[in-house]
Parts: sequence; structure tokens; C-alpha cells
Amino acid sequence: MSTISTYLVQGMTCGHCARAVGGGIEAIEGVVRADVDVAAGTVTVEAAAPVADEAVSSAVAEAGYTYGGRA
Amino acid sequence: MSTISTYLVQGMTCGHCARAVGGGIEAIEGVVRADVDVAAGTVTVEAAAPVADEAVSSAVAEAGYTYGGRA
Repeated sequence: MSTISTYLVQGMTCGHCARAVGGGIEAIEGVVRADVDVAAGTVTVEAAAPVADEAVSSAVAEAGYTYGGRA
Repeated sequence: MSTISTYLVQGMTCGHCARAVGGGIEAIEGVVRADVDVAAGTVTVEAAAPVADEAVSSAVAEAGYTYGGRA
């Protein structure tokens, strides 16, 4: 069973931004896939088991963007 | 002696874009430096000798942006 959660991310403007954020989140253990919507400012994350918000927040910050919590 | 020319580039929105365009232009033979101004949509290129506009245009297109001619 997998879980799907959507998070708000501020500051993404282009495909490079999407790849930076998506790649960072996909590196979190258990994450299967991260779909970034630049226009909406969201990332939808599919994971094999629930992921800690802090892990997502850290990945977003490390990529250089602002984590805005769960959508 | 070096030459300095400024070109218009459309579509850049962030630092990743700036690096993609600047890096592409700096790979052109003779180019010493490319300074990207994302907000202005310009790239100022310093070269050891005049660079063909076509070389700049190609580098911009390869990076995924739109070349708009000399500023």
C-alpha cells in the first residue's frame, strides 16, 4: 500500500526548479515518486509508507525553496 | 583586447536558468565570461575576439531559451 500527500512549495519558477525539488524529495527513503506542479506551487508525493513532514521540508529547503506545509 | 556584447534572452526565470544560459555561452570558443541578468532578460558576453551572433543564438536555444538578438 502506498500513501499520497501533497505539499506546498514556494519559489519554483521553471523546469529546473521542478527537477531540483522533485529530485530532492525522491531521494527520501520510501518515496516512490514526486510530481511537481510549478504553476500550482505543489509537490505530490507517493511513498511506500508515510513520510515525515520534516523530511519533505528539509529536502525542499536544501533545494533552495520554501516549504509551505501540507496542501 | 576583448569585446563586450549584450544579448536579449527570453524565458529565464531563476538562477538555474541563468546558469544554463551562462554556462552554454561560456562554452563558446573565445568567450571569457557571460553575465546573466535574469530580471532584465539579458546576457552580457565578454570575449577575446568577436563572437558570431549565431553561436550565441545556438547556445541560448540549446539551453532551452529564446534568443532575442543584440540588446
